[in-house]
Amino acid sequence: MIRVIILSKTENPMEVLYLAARTSRYVGDFDTQLKVKPKESEKEKLVRNLVKWGHLSILEHVSFVFGIEGISRVTSHQLVRHRLASYTQQSQRYASMKDNNLIIPPSIQRNSEALKIMKDIEKKTMDAYHKLCTLGIPMEDARYLLPHGLDTRIVMTMNMRELWNTCSVRLCTLSQWEILSLFEEVRKAVGTVSPFLASLLQAQCLHLGKCPEDTPCEVLISAKKA
Amino acid sequence: MIRVIILSKTENPMEVLYLAARTSRYVGDFDTQLKVKPKESEKEKLVRNLVKWGHLSILEHVSFVFGIEGISRVTSHQLVRHRLASYTQQSQRYASMKDNNLIIPPSIQRNSEALKIMKDIEKKTMDAYHKLCTLGIPMEDARYLLPHGLDTRIVMTMNMRELWNTCSVRLCTLSQWEILSLFEEVRKAVGTVSPFLASLLQAQCLHLGKCPEDTPCEVLISAKKA
Amino acid sequence: MIRVIILSKTENPMEVLYLAARTSRYVGDFDTQLKVKPKESEKEKLVRNLVKWGHLSILEHVSFVFGIEGISRVTSHQLVRHRLASYTQQSQRYASMKDNNLIIPPSIQRNSEALKIMKDIEKKTMDAYHKLCTLGIPMEDARYLLPHGLDTRIVMTMNMRELWNTCSVRLCTLSQWEILSLFEEVRKAVGTVSPFLASLLQAQCLHLGKCPEDTPCEVLISAKKA
Amino acid sequence: MIRVIILSKTENPMEVLYLAARTSRYVGDFDTQLKVKPKESEKEKLVRNLVKWGHLSILEHVSFVFGIEGISRVTSHQLVRHRLASYTQQSQRYASMKDNNLIIPPSIQRNSEALKIMKDIEKKTMDAYHKLCTLGIPMEDARYLLPHGLDTRIVMTMNMRELWNTCSVRLCTLSQWEILSLFEEVRKAVGTVSPFLASLLQAQCLHLGKCPEDTPCEVLISAKKA
Repeated sequence: MIRVIILSKTENPMEVLYLAARTSRYVGDFDTQLKVKPKESEKEKLVRNLVKWGHLSILEHVSFVFGIEGISRVTSHQLVRHRLASYTQQSQRYASMKDNNLIIPPSIQRNSEALKIMKDIEKKTMDAYHKLCTLGIPMEDARYLLPHGLDTRIVMTMNMRELWNTCSVRLCTLSQWEILSLFEEVRKAVGTVSPFLASLLQAQCLHLGKCPEDTPCEVLISAKKA
Repeated sequence: MIRVIILSKTENPMEVLYLAARTSRYVGDFDTQLKVKPKESEKEKLVRNLVKWGHLSILEHVSFVFGIEGISRVTSHQLVRHRLASYTQQSQRYASMKDNNLIIPPSIQRNSEALKIMKDIEKKTMDAYHKLCTLGIPMEDARYLLPHGLDTRIVMTMNMRELWNTCSVRLCTLSQWEILSLFEEVRKAVGTVSPFLASLLQAQCLHLGKCPEDTPCEVLISAKKA
Repeated sequence: MIRVIILSKTENPMEVLYLAARTSRYVGDFDTQLKVKPKESEKEKLVRNLVKWGHLSILEHVSFVFGIEGISRVTSHQLVRHRLASYTQQSQRYASMKDNNLIIPPSIQRNSEALKIMKDIEKKTMDAYHKLCTLGIPMEDARYLLPHGLDTRIVMTMNMRELWNTCSVRLCTLSQWEILSLFEEVRKAVGTVSPFLASLLQAQCLHLGKCPEDTPCEVLISAKKA
Repeated sequence: MIRVIILSKTENPMEVLYLAARTSRYVGDFDTQLKVKPKESEKEKLVRNLVKWGHLSILEHVSFVFGIEGISRVTSHQLVRHRLASYTQQSQRYASMKDNNLIIPPSIQRNSEALKIMKDIEKKTMDAYHKLCTLGIPMEDARYLLPHGLDTRIVMTMNMRELWNTCSVRLCTLSQWEILSLFEEVRKAVGTVSPFLASLLQAQCLHLGKCPEDTPCEVLISAKKA
């Protein structure tokens, strides 16, 4: 079960975005600028427009620190390819994997024969891992036989601009199911802080109004109906 | 007068750093990990050691959003060369420069003849700028005659790792006086949040124990005496 | 006069892009993969499709090293805000500006009164700069009175993905005239190496089929007619 | 067996580095600057000094495109954490793993009992993978049971500055054996282009003259003797 919690975040995100957004045209100092106290709806309108116009840079001033657990190393390997973010991951060099579990894809969950094979491999590889450790093989080497589906934990800090970019790609239905689920959980977690900020995070087709891959799925079709 | 204020920052920076630092070796989930409540001194000790050993990546999880004003565009042009940070600057395309002031370097302040020349140029260029605007020249073009020393304002978001790197270089006495002063103010601003975090920000010679340029200045010499 | 020359580049750019593009699905080793010698048109087709689908990452494997001269520091300050590139610029700390010239915007060129003011400021500021240097003021401080329009030289290394991104924004007619001209020259320079690669570099409206700012200019209108 | 080949690189790397290195202080245009044809030893001396003084930014203008094969996904997961580089990896979503092999760590090679366990797991997991594929499970899901030690291929583009940084860390004997071997091969590959550039790539202790982790190994001890 993927779990995403917010460990920390930039304080007062909407105030930061509004202030940054107005800095380029503002004539005056920060003290004066900070005295302006717009309504929430005004801040949201300004930010929404900037994002619509493609002026995304102000979104970089707000970051979230996520605690992510219950994802496989298949997915963490895909995740860390998003280079404009910071990651600290549970190490298979320094932490024993004895309490970690295998993530089982839905396609395998639904197929009893496949599930049996998978469970069997889980048991055999975990037993072998422990055996190697007992034989004095370092954990960092014993891990070479561990399956990719074994779960991991990771602290990820990502700013709102990169969240926007990453969600554009990873909330697309062409993503693999697990990383798509992960970013749905990331979006939900952002929503607990600010439903407005979460609403900016969408698959790219919803930003573009079309599927760049020319194979529109139901996400875009439903959006067009709505 | 350079002024640096903290507009926002990552919430609970020391808790975030401690949690991230322990994640790679921790066997257990975030809920369990979050129950650990170490003393401040223990958190500081762990972070100080990681920095000493060169394991800087955890520092990326904590960012500061600075409001910077009273710096020249000489310095802002140097500042934005630090690419692992986010900037939103007062625009000379969209904001009139009529209330901006010329920053005068100390070497000119101390030389009455030079100061007179500088003041004269400030007046002549500002007058010419206004004249061009009156003639219908767009601000973005009239600005071509504005002096580099004219002041600017900038919102800068930088994480602790990049602050560590940037201070290593910019607190060195080979930096130009203005950007050196700027990062002294940045360090002071960090110190209002956490004297411990500010203490990590130093010229590189103090980290290395030697001057990489082989021209040690009094910073290193005093440190070695102390 | 802006001048952009190619100082160096990745060898065999189309071969590199084709090989990288096929690596993700290829079963076999590099030696075998390198034996495949597709026609130029086939390589172009594959790359064009990947770009159309938004799979831009392979473009990162090809870089160009540009020599840029005859741009103002107004433009170099805008240019270095593109952070995913490498820059080495003529320094105003260490190089005397005595032979540098003021870039004069077209709006000022066309207005004789404005032009006279500009020329006058150029002379006064350059005279003052030399006077300060004579008085023993360091070049790095004397430069505070130099106008932003003074020209500069810069070596810029940028990969094709970031060229694609940067051209999307800077070839838009909402960019300031000088940086727009700069990227037209950059595109021409790329075209001397590969007309195909240059053809990928366009204003974002031509990629999107619409103006994200909702103020379509003649670029998009002509493209739609054609 | 790790294999690293150079697929491409920046043309004329030493000329590029020398030209960039002199640009900041040069008064004149690129045509004039390009006429200067220093001896190889002069170029090397300038670059070596800049690196010694910590002025690494010019190294960014030269990149190498490496073809890497015969590394495990343990190592590719570590590798892609170096974010200032470009990667295109063989996909386990789109390429069948039927011809891939398990990398076996030396500690296991040396232990006959451990080796037997490892070989057994390799056979069982590959059989199970094929069985799942036969059952209609998509490759991207069947891969959840594949061991981390399975080999992969990757195209990596990295510039000389990031090679310098990465080698500083990964040529340290505290790195895991496989990524250390990988960067020894990377350094050898650079050496086929330029022995001088390869000579810049070293473990950080050799740059610093001390072990930052306070546990000096024989690398530093031998270097001090020599």
